[in-house]
Amino acid sequence: MMGSALCVPLVDRGHVVRLVGTHLDDEIISSLTATRYHPTLQAELPRAVQPIPFRKLSAAMANVDVIGVGVSSAGLQWAGEHLRAYASADRPIIMITKGLTLQDGLPKLLPDLLTELLQSNTSDQVHPAAVGGPCIAGELVRRVPTCVVLTGHDAKVLERLAALIRTPYYQVWTSTETIGVQVCAALKNAYALGVALAAGLHEQQGGKAAAVAMHNYEAAVFAQAAQELQRLVEALGGDPSTVIGLAGVGDLNVTCNAGRTGRFGRLLGLGLSPAEAVETMQPATLECLEVLQLLRDALPALERCGMVQETELPLLSHLASVALDGQPVQVPFDRFFSA
Amino acid sequence: MMGSALCVPLVDRGHVVRLVGTHLDDEIISSLTATRYHPTLQAELPRAVQPIPFRKLSAAMANVDVIGVGVSSAGLQWAGEHLRAYASADRPIIMITKGLTLQDGLPKLLPDLLTELLQSNTSDQVHPAAVGGPCIAGELVRRVPTCVVLTGHDAKVLERLAALIRTPYYQVWTSTETIGVQVCAALKNAYALGVALAAGLHEQQGGKAAAVAMHNYEAAVFAQAAQELQRLVEALGGDPSTVIGLAGVGDLNVTCNAGRTGRFGRLLGLGLSPAEAVETMQPATLECLEVLQLLRDALPALERCGMVQETELPLLSHLASVALDGQPVQVPFDRFFSA
Repeated sequence: MMGSALCVPLVDRGHVVRLVGTHLDDEIISSLTATRYHPTLQAELPRAVQPIPFRKLSAAMANVDVIGVGVSSAGLQWAGEHLRAYASADRPIIMITKGLTLQDGLPKLLPDLLTELLQSNTSDQVHPAAVGGPCIAGELVRRVPTCVVLTGHDAKVLERLAALIRTPYYQVWTSTETIGVQVCAALKNAYALGVALAAGLHEQQGGKAAAVAMHNYEAAVFAQAAQELQRLVEALGGDPSTVIGLAGVGDLNVTCNAGRTGRFGRLLGLGLSPAEAVETMQPATLECLEVLQLLRDALPALERCGMVQETELPLLSHLASVALDGQPVQVPFDRFFSA
Repeated sequence: MMGSALCVPLVDRGHVVRLVGTHLDDEIISSLTATRYHPTLQAELPRAVQPIPFRKLSAAMANVDVIGVGVSSAGLQWAGEHLRAYASADRPIIMITKGLTLQDGLPKLLPDLLTELLQSNTSDQVHPAAVGGPCIAGELVRRVPTCVVLTGHDAKVLERLAALIRTPYYQVWTSTETIGVQVCAALKNAYALGVALAAGLHEQQGGKAAAVAMHNYEAAVFAQAAQELQRLVEALGGDPSTVIGLAGVGDLNVTCNAGRTGRFGRLLGLGLSPAEAVETMQPATLECLEVLQLLRDALPALERCGMVQETELPLLSHLASVALDGQPVQVPFDRFFSA
């Protein structure tokens, strides 16, 4: 969805854009080819976007200046294998995929994983740029004003890419603080789940969405989320100040107000078991579950290395116990704000 | 409203609580006396709260251990004059009033103003503690879980007060970082106005409240608001890290999701003039206008002293031009995130 949405500012800037689906996206590509209608975005893409099925990937790659990657985080390994043949040092890659992966028991940034996957083809290291910040695909495709941050290792490449994709409604900042931006991009899903619990709890107690609801509860969770994000960014080697910006509180804010994670959190707050909530949300991919599991798996190694202690992350620990183990919601406010 | 709401955790803790109205609150006090119903909170207060009209202030002050002050920021001068006779060094004061005032062209914290107003009665300096953080009165009165921060100069006094008022649903942290907490408490109203513009703009363009709306726009404004809050806290001598907590992004979050400021911002986004929007909001007090005017008045002196430049606050400047001068909404995203 985000890969498709990003085509809109690109064609508005006059670029030739080939939108290649994965092997799972043939129906979407067919629909786009026939009517320009994108069924999951529920919107038409501009005529200039060229939808291309996966079997024609090789032809689509002819004379390409920039490659964008918008698969799900689980699909990145697959994407890396299929893109390896087309990677070269003078062909920048922009990752739209957000998330983290686990390697040797520790969290690893997805652009770094993709770098490894592409490495075997080229003696030069190809390090993808990655997009962070608050961007709901369904809004970008409708040209709602959107501000994002493009991160990567090379400030000059970032500036060149940003200049290629910037439009009046899609504003792009650049940052070489890759760790903070990526950690926020992944973790905001977990924390937005926590903020959304309140809406479900309120509804379960017979409340209706209104100015007086459980907004005090939500806001306390939001504030603790921002602090734990800072702690995690710092622990993983990033700059905690990244949290005070588009990639941090900006992306957390938008994820609380829109999107799958909020709906899933509300269902858990309503008292559904994780399995029931997942079932209700089908067929949506729930990145919040992936990142909670990943952090749980990584915590022993992070603790051993002295990078962060679980006791510093009381909200994240509770969210994992609710969403992964089906424990009842009982946000441990008394353990908050001890940093 | 907030003073009345705070009575709920106080009586739940078993304290004797006398709720004294100002001379403008006689109707509320009469209603509470007759039926315990608080007309503006639209809720019943517990039986243990003793409503007392202003003319009986003197009797109400007999043997009082702690004084709470919950007048509007504009009423603080008046309150100080009437409370002066009862101030003493061994009788702590808790301010629920949030805001800033202007003195000699520069912003001044309200607890510091109240200290001055009370000073003439006592050789000891009485410095009030003040409450910050995300707390909608209508939720506190309904015992919605709420987390706040109590600030002041004396950590021991703060701990003692916090221990007196803490309940399982009203959790209290303490901080001697008075500047950051107070600046956030005042400024969050201005910035929440900015976040709320998007809802009005979306509606004006025929949109409905939905998952796909103008959340990307809101989130970018939220992120810039957090950065400008940090800049202002720092400029006024506080700790920018206070923004990453209850008093900062926590209170900003709750103010965006509930309360008068958000409704006012939506009206401006819809295209109403400030006068029309104020008229529609009657009789609500609009702290956001007070604080925008105050910052505008203070900026020349702040710039002269090298504390902050208007160019560092593009969002605040624009909000002032919209809400005070009736300029059209045109959020200057291209000037954001330059810090």
